[in-house]
Amino acid sequence: MTEQTRIDHEQIRDFIFKVLSKEGVEQGAAGHVASGLVHASLRGVDSHGIRLLPHYLKALKSGRINPRPDYSFKQTTPSTGILDADDAYGHAAGMEAVAKALVLARKAGMGAVAVKRSTHFGAASFFALEISRHDMIGMSFTHADSLIVPTGGTRRFLGNNPVCFTAPCEGEDPICLDMATSVITFNKVLQLREEGASAPSGAGADETGRETRDPSHIVNLLPVGGYKGYGLSLMVEVLCSLLTGMPFGTHINRMYDAPIEEKRNLGHFFIAIRVDAFEEIDIFKKRMKMLASELRTEPRLDPDIAVQIAGDPEKRVSNERTKKGIPLRHVDFTFLEQASLDYGIELNLLK
Amino acid sequence: MTEQTRIDHEQIRDFIFKVLSKEGVEQGAAGHVASGLVHASLRGVDSHGIRLLPHYLKALKSGRINPRPDYSFKQTTPSTGILDADDAYGHAAGMEAVAKALVLARKAGMGAVAVKRSTHFGAASFFALEISRHDMIGMSFTHADSLIVPTGGTRRFLGNNPVCFTAPCEGEDPICLDMATSVITFNKVLQLREEGASAPSGAGADETGRETRDPSHIVNLLPVGGYKGYGLSLMVEVLCSLLTGMPFGTHINRMYDAPIEEKRNLGHFFIAIRVDAFEEIDIFKKRMKMLASELRTEPRLDPDIAVQIAGDPEKRVSNERTKKGIPLRHVDFTFLEQASLDYGIELNLLK
Repeated sequence: MTEQTRIDHEQIRDFIFKVLSKEGVEQGAAGHVASGLVHASLRGVDSHGIRLLPHYLKALKSGRINPRPDYSFKQTTPSTGILDADDAYGHAAGMEAVAKALVLARKAGMGAVAVKRSTHFGAASFFALEISRHDMIGMSFTHADSLIVPTGGTRRFLGNNPVCFTAPCEGEDPICLDMATSVITFNKVLQLREEGASAPSGAGADETGRETRDPSHIVNLLPVGGYKGYGLSLMVEVLCSLLTGMPFGTHINRMYDAPIEEKRNLGHFFIAIRVDAFEEIDIFKKRMKMLASELRTEPRLDPDIAVQIAGDPEKRVSNERTKKGIPLRHVDFTFLEQASLDYGIELNLLK
Repeated sequence: MTEQTRIDHEQIRDFIFKVLSKEGVEQGAAGHVASGLVHASLRGVDSHGIRLLPHYLKALKSGRINPRPDYSFKQTTPSTGILDADDAYGHAAGMEAVAKALVLARKAGMGAVAVKRSTHFGAASFFALEISRHDMIGMSFTHADSLIVPTGGTRRFLGNNPVCFTAPCEGEDPICLDMATSVITFNKVLQLREEGASAPSGAGADETGRETRDPSHIVNLLPVGGYKGYGLSLMVEVLCSLLTGMPFGTHINRMYDAPIEEKRNLGHFFIAIRVDAFEEIDIFKKRMKMLASELRTEPRLDPDIAVQIAGDPEKRVSNERTKKGIPLRHVDFTFLEQASLDYGIELNLLK
């Protein structure tokens, strides 16, 4: 393998911020989108990282996304509120909602904010981790366009709705479970096609809804653990569609296939729970670290691979990419170099 | 197959209540245990149903369970509180906590109660469904003794910690996801042994931690969806152990293998979210019903099997068993008939 072109994470964050600003995106939103994309790329979640920038720019220019959203927040009870995101970038809408949830939780012990009229928000961990950096339990949810075949069905209906849970830990970043409710992502299917490899069993369905391991025949995804993943996806749909008044399942405008000018009308849901409402924060963090350490030092099935806990793989990649830079595919750095010329913004690739 | 002995659900509830009362269990707790066991049996979750009565009586007589608990509840913020269950039956402790969570949520929009010093609480759905009958989103969690092998490990560490989520629905009982975080339960392993059948792939591990499909070699369970089920199990452990101050993972006293007089020191966690803090309850329920109906009428992979949503199988069994009675294994009705004699409480079996 040839050595890969990389870019420093602070530089690419700054670059994206400037590009969005030049496109008229207000400063707060531009900052959250830039941080959100780099957050995902740093952690190795490339599908939700900087490779989405071209799409996000297209969605902006087409009018799907509002560059200067006029958020309206309504607190409905001491612990809850609704944010109308006015078609903002999902990253920005989500961070606005998280800020509100933190304020609610500080006073009321818990805070939950439902977001309506939003767009794709990237990686769910971006939001829940922000909550846990304030010594709270974080949960973040979004629904997405239809991709998963319900157990016993033949067609996709619910989206690959993620479940994300975070908790503070002593001496390290919060632990973070950020899981799709499918077995594999559709990006993984595309990768398997390129590699000519088989999909794992129970992961994909063909046009008739039947399971297939041939990635070239996979058109929809199967839920992880059968009805369990399907049920979790439904749970997220309830929170993000039924509590927000946004469309559900097949009624959601598709991210890529729908006309790019069409609004997404996505919903998100965030929960913040103050740890110190239940346990002293220092004791909680110390015990979280103990639990993590006990698991990480469990006997290994493969002597070369340590037992990990939720978020460990992303922490490892994040450390590496913070030092060495974020690797770019050819198509990504071609886009970035052209953007550098078009917008007149300096871009220094590593290597 | 010979026709099975059955018992009417109201009669067995009443019978269990009387047995527990004769053993000195206070009325409230006796009612919750009786209702909780019958709830599980009615829904077809027999592993958590009336077959546990002998164990629960043993745990009571040994002193593990306190028949007349002195609950102490401390509200810590407008939306949160901690219940010390004083070694009560888990069913009773859980229902006490749910009642508190409902009161908190009515005032604050959401309510969360952490329970400490509790015991086995049976089926998680018992509690979350109670929350949703009050027009709220319900979530209930408990940890359990170590049974699941962490991904990449060789030994069990976390319990088969359940995730339960419920939401109100127009014209029917709330929808209800109540899932274990393993692929199959250990009860299922025992059943497969009896039948001489193979376990599904990815479900069980032998003494060395390696996957095996031979149920006679399965000693521990594997998490559903690999690291996803493991991560969900960890999430539940954080809520039920780290927020409650109770032991975690392998430090938890085992339900069966530990000396029966040892306290369990289990933790539970309940969340109630008022639907009307986000959406009008009638609209929510109507849309929940629409979502359910759309899924249930999706094209079928097998023309004879309709697509279901979370809780549908349990609703079907519950309807059937409400009419026909709850089927009893030979060992169960032998126990009940003896108990009827011992306690002098009438018992009329069906058929």
